[in-house]
Amino acid sequence: MQAEIIAVGTEILLGQITNTNSTYIARGLAELGIDSYYQTVVGDNPQRLSAVIEIAAQRNDLVILTGGLGPTKDDLTKQTLARYLNVALVEDRAAMQKITAWFAANDKVMTANNRLQALYPAGAQPLANHNGMAVGAFYQSENSADFLLLPGPPRELAAMFDSEAKPKLAAAYGEQARIYSRVMRFYGISESELATRLQSLIDKQQAVTIAPYAKTNEVTLRLSAQAETEAAAKAMIDKVDHQIKATIGAFFYGYGDDNSLVATVINQMIAAKLSITAAESLTAGLFQSTIGSVSGVSAIFPGGFVTYANEAKHQLVNVPQAIIDTEGVVSEATAKAMASGAKQQLNTAVGISFTGVAGPGTLEGQPAGTVWIGLAYRDQPAKAKQYHFAGSRQQIRMRSVMAGLDLLRHALDADTDLKK
Amino acid sequence: MQAEIIAVGTEILLGQITNTNSTYIARGLAELGIDSYYQTVVGDNPQRLSAVIEIAAQRNDLVILTGGLGPTKDDLTKQTLARYLNVALVEDRAAMQKITAWFAANDKVMTANNRLQALYPAGAQPLANHNGMAVGAFYQSENSADFLLLPGPPRELAAMFDSEAKPKLAAAYGEQARIYSRVMRFYGISESELATRLQSLIDKQQAVTIAPYAKTNEVTLRLSAQAETEAAAKAMIDKVDHQIKATIGAFFYGYGDDNSLVATVINQMIAAKLSITAAESLTAGLFQSTIGSVSGVSAIFPGGFVTYANEAKHQLVNVPQAIIDTEGVVSEATAKAMASGAKQQLNTAVGISFTGVAGPGTLEGQPAGTVWIGLAYRDQPAKAKQYHFAGSRQQIRMRSVMAGLDLLRHALDADTDLKK
Repeated sequence: MQAEIIAVGTEILLGQITNTNSTYIARGLAELGIDSYYQTVVGDNPQRLSAVIEIAAQRNDLVILTGGLGPTKDDLTKQTLARYLNVALVEDRAAMQKITAWFAANDKVMTANNRLQALYPAGAQPLANHNGMAVGAFYQSENSADFLLLPGPPRELAAMFDSEAKPKLAAAYGEQARIYSRVMRFYGISESELATRLQSLIDKQQAVTIAPYAKTNEVTLRLSAQAETEAAAKAMIDKVDHQIKATIGAFFYGYGDDNSLVATVINQMIAAKLSITAAESLTAGLFQSTIGSVSGVSAIFPGGFVTYANEAKHQLVNVPQAIIDTEGVVSEATAKAMASGAKQQLNTAVGISFTGVAGPGTLEGQPAGTVWIGLAYRDQPAKAKQYHFAGSRQQIRMRSVMAGLDLLRHALDADTDLKK
Repeated sequence: MQAEIIAVGTEILLGQITNTNSTYIARGLAELGIDSYYQTVVGDNPQRLSAVIEIAAQRNDLVILTGGLGPTKDDLTKQTLARYLNVALVEDRAAMQKITAWFAANDKVMTANNRLQALYPAGAQPLANHNGMAVGAFYQSENSADFLLLPGPPRELAAMFDSEAKPKLAAAYGEQARIYSRVMRFYGISESELATRLQSLIDKQQAVTIAPYAKTNEVTLRLSAQAETEAAAKAMIDKVDHQIKATIGAFFYGYGDDNSLVATVINQMIAAKLSITAAESLTAGLFQSTIGSVSGVSAIFPGGFVTYANEAKHQLVNVPQAIIDTEGVVSEATAKAMASGAKQQLNTAVGISFTGVAGPGTLEGQPAGTVWIGLAYRDQPAKAKQYHFAGSRQQIRMRSVMAGLDLLRHALDADTDLKK
């Protein structure tokens, strides 16, 4: 079983966007145990698209096309495939109803080209698009390769591939041994350090593959095992999981593809009924907005403060003017006073604060990337920690938020009350 | 002049890394005015690599290979190319000296495979690697396509492509006309609506190509013209730019690849010395964090409020309890009171507020996506506007922030004081 991914889009050929869709699909194929020896990118041009479809169909059992299912006249993928297969395009009623309903609900005029998004090649199984309008398709053929049609926008692609296509591929090519996998997530260790520290474990592994991925500000490990049953795979993976934690367990914070440091920390706080507020200077609301992304956070988060200017630090969260004058705003004393002041104002269990230099310039003579994070945790005296982050203004702000979440995670872990 | 990029690496096919090298090279080719209609990825396998080289050489004038120049036994790209070209591999003396010197300086034993990194196909021009050891090559041929060999590690690739390869490509193919382009940015119109409204303009264009791209919550148009001089291209693009603005100018907010709605609005406010604050409920700091991303915003942004809980709306920005009790928090009256209250607290020229239902559940009987944005602009009475956004919790919050920025943009545009 061998598959090729063809990404369709002139913007990839011009270097305007990076082809992350092929990465996403490739990882999914690896999990399904389907080999992939080639990937292709081609523009929104029917002649050249036909030519690459023909080459791909000759050298593979399955050809996956992503992109070009939209409503504009550049979107020609399914028309070109239908011509290659010599079949008509037919309408998916559910998709058409969704399109019509959307235009009615949003009070917009539906143009003819929007109907195109509900069409798929006759003889295929249509695939629902949970994050958009363009329908996908899985076409199985006895004489030529099979085809999978997926949309181009990454959110649409990911949802359709995971929830619609993968089960159909598993059913169609099910004689393959199944691959089971588990994702472990780490914060505070780089990909290269993680790879170095796990090198001997990775090298001696036969049954379980250990693949590290660098994500934004964190690293994940995917453990995969090929086995007849899920229980057998789980036992194999458990053993390696245990060995990994013995080596770099201090950096491990949770499991799962859809997990994140913020979800882990906030869900723990919701369960423990610990309320939180924040006073943010350089992060300007990014911490609060990040915890706001977790559904259910309202149970423990009444609100908080963005104290960008010095006066706001004093006015909103009562940082004594004397501290600002003598210690400066990029200081341990200011960070502590911000965290305590915010906590007191909103009467929460926890207050956290961020003050520092996002850059590009310096502040109070301190270079960009110098950040103090303050934490007033329950009845403990407020403390603060200094960090030096590298990167752009945005990266420094994001790294500050991640470090704040990690500080919280360690405070929660050390809180013996929560273990009761 | 037409070029294809072939990235060599099994880790791309397995989805372990994203193929950013092809993006980097593609952008460089576009700048040089070299067309690129295909990209390919193939693994570290000499048979399949030979096959894709053959296909690429048939359909292009130049084939660019990246990856597989290193010292491990997986690295077979230049051996495979030399076999295809039927030439020997010869040693680049400078590269060999660099490798020998490194091993001597680092007190390591140099193994035979390290010598491989100094080899390149006979007849080619070697390209120095400023960030690594593997030498690259530019091979020009009279009978077949030309070949460019580049390393795989992104830092090595970028340096070699920019400083070594690009000048040689420009010299070799310098007779090509250059492509100039301009990016126009739009908010509040969908990609399909934009394409429909510009259809006849796009269809009748010969000299200037008009390419729409859907970005997160906005759409861009790239206008590109091929001309001998920048001035000639600019004149051609200006004309089409003008026609586009006559059609959908109401949605246009600015130019440039690195621009954004927030940068446009905030830079206008900095120039006009108009200060701003915010009271955010469902967005939980996302608006303030977004304006915090613009360098220099501290001149006009003292700070603000996250008022997630009802009590915080009352306590922090003085929303009268009676309004919350009678109108609810998802209401015009609450949105106006939040905007005015925040403006008054921090004595700014502008106050903006966000209150609504991020979901997944309903709030006060209103469905997810119902959002009120309040605006207290200078001496004008506060006003508020209702929106119904589709999408996930995160999307609803992001769309609220974009709509708030758009509301501000229109208020700034209508402010006759600023035109003086």
